[in-house]
Amino acid sequence: MLFREKLLKDIEFIVEMDKLKTIKRKTKLIGLDEEEDDAEHSWHISLMAMILAEYANEKIDLLKVIKMLLIHDLVEIYAGDTFCYDTEGNENKRERELAAAEKLYALLDRQRADELRELWDEFEAMETPESQFANSMDRLQPMLMNCRNNGGTWKKYDVSKTEIYQRIAPVKASSDELWCYVNLMIEDAFQKRFINKR
Amino acid sequence: MLFREKLLKDIEFIVEMDKLKTIKRKTKLIGLDEEEDDAEHSWHISLMAMILAEYANEKIDLLKVIKMLLIHDLVEIYAGDTFCYDTEGNENKRERELAAAEKLYALLDRQRADELRELWDEFEAMETPESQFANSMDRLQPMLMNCRNNGGTWKKYDVSKTEIYQRIAPVKASSDELWCYVNLMIEDAFQKRFINKR
Repeated sequence: MLFREKLLKDIEFIVEMDKLKTIKRKTKLIGLDEEEDDAEHSWHISLMAMILAEYANEKIDLLKVIKMLLIHDLVEIYAGDTFCYDTEGNENKRERELAAAEKLYALLDRQRADELRELWDEFEAMETPESQFANSMDRLQPMLMNCRNNGGTWKKYDVSKTEIYQRIAPVKASSDELWCYVNLMIEDAFQKRFINKR
Repeated sequence: MLFREKLLKDIEFIVEMDKLKTIKRKTKLIGLDEEEDDAEHSWHISLMAMILAEYANEKIDLLKVIKMLLIHDLVEIYAGDTFCYDTEGNENKRERELAAAEKLYALLDRQRADELRELWDEFEAMETPESQFANSMDRLQPMLMNCRNNGGTWKKYDVSKTEIYQRIAPVKASSDELWCYVNLMIEDAFQKRFINKR
């Protein structure tokens, strides 16, 4: 029994992806002065999807949601993390990430590259129930952390309530029950002055 | 529309699980003098499962495998990480982790607790194809890292080739193709003196 060349490419890819653990985000771990990294974040939102899937309005393919979440930040190994409320950084984010995606998927066998690329494209397009739910997890997680960090990046970067509601909109499309919670959470954070601008 | 009390428990659980990002393992990130944490490790092996599932001998339920991998280390938030080649630490590991599991699952609604507890029990028992494959990922990942770290924890703790083959045995049961790769990898590491004892 021998193994296919494809397996060697898969293993090299897995090894290269170790670098996701070094890509720092703006969000800090709850109660600590330590930035979260992309691998930790990807694990946390995958766990969230597994637990919160039952609150989705529509029946969703949870495996697909989790696959999207496990790979959605891989391009940041080459493109870096862009803070979601950084207007300037977001101007050329798409361009930088597309170039990173070319580099990333070139490491893989064609079939595997297509498979991962399709998942990433679906996540980014945010049109299917699965990608809306996946994006909901990706956006809700740092908000939960900000609430527990007395405002966290909301306070530090003076983010407005309007910007937060724009950012968390995918939850509204995904789950009535989660949306109800999110609404309460944001208004509570505003009352507590974790958010200072309307 | 209101949300159920169960959702609040789920959210509190998700927040509490943030602590997994602070549980350090012995393995270091590839090429860096920085220990990996449990959340990073859990993400990496979930990604591995997604990519390597096609090499499994039997058809496996990948969603179940990934669910097991996302939650398999949660007990370490209360029990700490036990190095797999630490004979003394492994003597009371099961006991410590069972106590931690009681504490962990008590945070949740009964139905959710049962669901997660069943997954963890299946992972630990290593009897089903899914749990064998999940354990294969959990054990292969630090080995890939040791190979890229010139021996890593194998060298630092003077682990023998016999111990490594014992540890990686689940791969033999899960995948002929991966087993062939693993065999080559271990023998190569031995030739390179990343492993110093037979």
